[in-house]
Amino acid sequence: MPTGWPSEGCEEKSMLKPVSKRAIYEAAEALSNWGRWGEDDQMGTINHITPADIVAAAGLIRQGKIFSLGLSLKEKIQSGLFGMRWNPVHQMLATGTDALAGNQTSPNIQYADDSISMPCQGSTQWDALCHVFLDGKMYNGYSAALVDSQGGKKLGIEHMRNKMVGRGVLLDIPRWKGIDWLEDGYGITSGDLDDCAKAQGVEIRKGDFVIVRTGHQERCISHGSWVGYAGGDAPGLAFETAYWIHEKEIAAICADTWGCEVRPNETEEAYQPWHWVVIPAIGISMGEIFYVKELAEDCAADKVYEFFFVAPPLHLPGGAGSPVNPQAIK
Amino acid sequence: MPTGWPSEGCEEKSMLKPVSKRAIYEAAEALSNWGRWGEDDQMGTINHITPADIVAAAGLIRQGKIFSLGLSLKEKIQSGLFGMRWNPVHQMLATGTDALAGNQTSPNIQYADDSISMPCQGSTQWDALCHVFLDGKMYNGYSAALVDSQGGKKLGIEHMRNKMVGRGVLLDIPRWKGIDWLEDGYGITSGDLDDCAKAQGVEIRKGDFVIVRTGHQERCISHGSWVGYAGGDAPGLAFETAYWIHEKEIAAICADTWGCEVRPNETEEAYQPWHWVVIPAIGISMGEIFYVKELAEDCAADKVYEFFFVAPPLHLPGGAGSPVNPQAIK
Amino acid sequence: MPTGWPSEGCEEKSMLKPVSKRAIYEAAEALSNWGRWGEDDQMGTINHITPADIVAAAGLIRQGKIFSLGLSLKEKIQSGLFGMRWNPVHQMLATGTDALAGNQTSPNIQYADDSISMPCQGSTQWDALCHVFLDGKMYNGYSAALVDSQGGKKLGIEHMRNKMVGRGVLLDIPRWKGIDWLEDGYGITSGDLDDCAKAQGVEIRKGDFVIVRTGHQERCISHGSWVGYAGGDAPGLAFETAYWIHEKEIAAICADTWGCEVRPNETEEAYQPWHWVVIPAIGISMGEIFYVKELAEDCAADKVYEFFFVAPPLHLPGGAGSPVNPQAIK
Amino acid sequence: MPTGWPSEGCEEKSMLKPVSKRAIYEAAEALSNWGRWGEDDQMGTINHITPADIVAAAGLIRQGKIFSLGLSLKEKIQSGLFGMRWNPVHQMLATGTDALAGNQTSPNIQYADDSISMPCQGSTQWDALCHVFLDGKMYNGYSAALVDSQGGKKLGIEHMRNKMVGRGVLLDIPRWKGIDWLEDGYGITSGDLDDCAKAQGVEIRKGDFVIVRTGHQERCISHGSWVGYAGGDAPGLAFETAYWIHEKEIAAICADTWGCEVRPNETEEAYQPWHWVVIPAIGISMGEIFYVKELAEDCAADKVYEFFFVAPPLHLPGGAGSPVNPQAIK
Repeated sequence: MPTGWPSEGCEEKSMLKPVSKRAIYEAAEALSNWGRWGEDDQMGTINHITPADIVAAAGLIRQGKIFSLGLSLKEKIQSGLFGMRWNPVHQMLATGTDALAGNQTSPNIQYADDSISMPCQGSTQWDALCHVFLDGKMYNGYSAALVDSQGGKKLGIEHMRNKMVGRGVLLDIPRWKGIDWLEDGYGITSGDLDDCAKAQGVEIRKGDFVIVRTGHQERCISHGSWVGYAGGDAPGLAFETAYWIHEKEIAAICADTWGCEVRPNETEEAYQPWHWVVIPAIGISMGEIFYVKELAEDCAADKVYEFFFVAPPLHLPGGAGSPVNPQAIK
Repeated sequence: MPTGWPSEGCEEKSMLKPVSKRAIYEAAEALSNWGRWGEDDQMGTINHITPADIVAAAGLIRQGKIFSLGLSLKEKIQSGLFGMRWNPVHQMLATGTDALAGNQTSPNIQYADDSISMPCQGSTQWDALCHVFLDGKMYNGYSAALVDSQGGKKLGIEHMRNKMVGRGVLLDIPRWKGIDWLEDGYGITSGDLDDCAKAQGVEIRKGDFVIVRTGHQERCISHGSWVGYAGGDAPGLAFETAYWIHEKEIAAICADTWGCEVRPNETEEAYQPWHWVVIPAIGISMGEIFYVKELAEDCAADKVYEFFFVAPPLHLPGGAGSPVNPQAIK
Repeated sequence: MPTGWPSEGCEEKSMLKPVSKRAIYEAAEALSNWGRWGEDDQMGTINHITPADIVAAAGLIRQGKIFSLGLSLKEKIQSGLFGMRWNPVHQMLATGTDALAGNQTSPNIQYADDSISMPCQGSTQWDALCHVFLDGKMYNGYSAALVDSQGGKKLGIEHMRNKMVGRGVLLDIPRWKGIDWLEDGYGITSGDLDDCAKAQGVEIRKGDFVIVRTGHQERCISHGSWVGYAGGDAPGLAFETAYWIHEKEIAAICADTWGCEVRPNETEEAYQPWHWVVIPAIGISMGEIFYVKELAEDCAADKVYEFFFVAPPLHLPGGAGSPVNPQAIK
Repeated sequence: MPTGWPSEGCEEKSMLKPVSKRAIYEAAEALSNWGRWGEDDQMGTINHITPADIVAAAGLIRQGKIFSLGLSLKEKIQSGLFGMRWNPVHQMLATGTDALAGNQTSPNIQYADDSISMPCQGSTQWDALCHVFLDGKMYNGYSAALVDSQGGKKLGIEHMRNKMVGRGVLLDIPRWKGIDWLEDGYGITSGDLDDCAKAQGVEIRKGDFVIVRTGHQERCISHGSWVGYAGGDAPGLAFETAYWIHEKEIAAICADTWGCEVRPNETEEAYQPWHWVVIPAIGISMGEIFYVKELAEDCAADKVYEFFFVAPPLHLPGGAGSPVNPQAIK
């Protein structure tokens, strides 16, 4: 770890060093998991999860209570700030009104049918490990050339189709701080994560799915507007948490924001500098736009911030991401 | 139950009566769950699952082994036999080749992005309870008029977004029969289901997710062709199993075929006669096109045909169905 | 014509009567073309065009100058005010960057490929005659039941695939008035149309494609915002112009606005009351969101407001509309 | 022109030399139009058309008869042989059945609405000049890097939005030969083109839109199957016609086949070798999948094979192609 970088016990925010391209490359080198699980590995930190972890996590199912962490696909969260993403388009191919009009005679069955068209990163989603590159390289050293118009030949989301299962932990930062939500630009530090976990009485363990709540979604819903949510300013993880993630050996990092990391970007030298490191160097799976309102309320009520977590992406070979409806089961 | 209908202990296939419109309406009346869980109910047989069932099912996680039951979305299974369904279209919005060409400078991050456009019933999927009507009525008496071009105002798949969790049971009919797959037109009887379960040493219980294997997918893959799979002839559940489903009080019925029920249709008076009953009258959730090859092999190896089952649909309000990647966890 | 309705020579705006449901039904009855061209007719006022008209219109091609009246499909004009329409999504299926990365080897050709997904009414478009109903009836008495999830069985846009050719006339209302654009809510009267034509020195003839300029698009572009353009307030044709249209026996009416008619609606008893009449009763083809800036400037310069007009819709059977790139040729 | 290449007067098919990579590069060099119309040119051979040509072509409108050359978008011509192209998906956003069910109350208007999703090259279409590259270069020397996931920054179809107008000429090869259609693999030679034109009594002139009929579509329709049409074997232009095209200085070349040129490919060293030359070197606009049945019948009847031709692509900035419904007006 580069000298001076606060990866744990960083009580003082003043210790936070400025982020820069140099800091990005230092972090990428220091935190690299390339080769750690073999030169052919396509799963990254998901490798931290053992079968025993899954069995143990199943023991967290004590009440038979299930929380859906998928935001409604009818929330119009895209407002054109990033890329060419659009709001999901749900269309019908057959309707009950057709049936009532007597039009469904061939074949002889009354039915409704529908379709969905959406960006894989358009709402609650997993980023695949082929989602972000650093200098033309993906996690484990694969060339970005392997991701073309046909999709990702390596590191596609299909490799995770039976892997997103284990112990989930919620870190509810604003509730811990006694506020409704964090403000845009608030960078959650490694110290915040540790202190919040401690206050919540929950331990972060190797192989965990860590879900960070900022309250951003609830703020948007409360204000009646998603403008800026997708691609604008937001609270989120500070750059330094890349070190925390690596040290904790967690399996995945998730948040209720569009991009997990704090915005505006902590440097003008890069867009989403934390992304430059955590996906291509660390190889961590990232979950974004998680809807955690009810889960967070329940955790606050029963003081239990851990749960069985199952969040299967679609079986989409070559996908750079996947819509998902994660399940937290207590 | 109408006299003469074999719903249990039907050892003799010769007892099978011909299916007809009259038989459909008799079954719909005999098996109706309308009002059973309140006149506002939108979940149907999923109500059979109790929190205790979920906790108990979690105990089936003993090895930390996970099976993905989602067929690859790149398998071209649609060949135009039903409705307007198309094969999923996966397209990129940003690529690694763009990054390598130096085109990703604004914003300053190298990344891949993608999209998916597909019928909700185009591959492995849940049918919502608003998917099939009987004489203009949906489950629980809701009018088909509630499903228009905007989607389903009632019985949409969103009601299941945190409900598809419980005990899963695989009934591997061809393996029990000692064959690779069932032939098209083979109607699996209630007796088959009971006998297979007995032979497998597994009990069917209230609230179960029952997954029936026919081997149809493996046949298509083995033959190198999906022609006829989606909408053509197939092995599947005989009409009489509607009675079995109702009596067993299972939560959901799933299969590795396009439409669960046997094809050709057992009568010329209706297309998919079993569908006319099980969705609108019984209110059962149906899973189709489940990929069960590896799960079935594992069950055959360890003789354990039960598992923890988690199959969250997308959070798609008004959806008549949803793509899903079900997880069987042992 | 109902007593008191000003269809021509209405110099005084004060003569404009309030629009109401009653006025709508009176107009629909008075202006109905049902049966006029046979009970099987599916073309409506396009029947006004004769082969001789087309030959004569060809004579307007004197300079070999062509104007494209299709707005760029990359203008983000949809902002969610109407229906479920989205902005066109243009995506690539193969790229030059893929080629440069050496990925296009099978088949052995370097190429780019792309796709478009858009509402048929999402940008410059023709409305088909099956686009609007009055009390469940379409033009010529066809039932609205003929338009279901499969498209329009009658009056689809395919009937116009070789019909949108003839004499085009531009009526540039704001330029005639000496202003840059009309304000929202300004209802263009029949008198305005007549006076503008007279001032421009152009005659409106039977079978014409009449294109009305309001300047709305130029206002949006000038203001750097399309908010409100699609579905919000706008200048446009007053309800009374339905009478003018009928009397003039024009083939089609087009405008540079989202919906041709003035907004806010002239009555609270109906949304787009003029639409209730002109499509289902008169059977007129309507062109919307036409981009006329350069054509208008050219007409102003050479004082020639007539031209050869060719605006073929896509050959889309059952289409309720079609994107189009109309050509005005002088 | 490379020695031995038959570009004109090639009466003897036996003179046809084998196609090879070397022949491709020789042709590309010999026929290159790079720089011919300025180093910034983005229109290629469309530059051959003069305003006077357009005025003259208008004179061909003598009967007021219009032919639509757009194949129905509901013909399922894609069968998976090339790229990721799919058959157009036409879906409704609002229907008459909804209206009849009383569901269209807000806003208060009864209407139908729809959408289209299709590959730009999925049916009758123009190829843009950015559609094909030769060794990473586009027409006029532009780098293929200019065509990425955002579309073509150069040579996009938008440059043709007001250019596809002029004199059209049909060359009906099978009718000239006295057969219904050409067989797959039949390579139409320069001599064929010249002889057919002569027999038809029509002259090929600079700036023409030349449309070649092979009868392939009629064969598919007659056989009730499109299998192989899109991407399989076909009759079409022989490689040598690249020289003919260049010499004749035509504006565009179009055909009723999927890819204009003969298939199987004339060499194993390249896929569609003619494409390697005519788009990137010559810079010619290419129209494919033109539906010419009725136009051809009419031309045969009145012996007039020339007409006014208007075929506007959609105004799609960056498009590598565009669906189109070309109009032939006599």
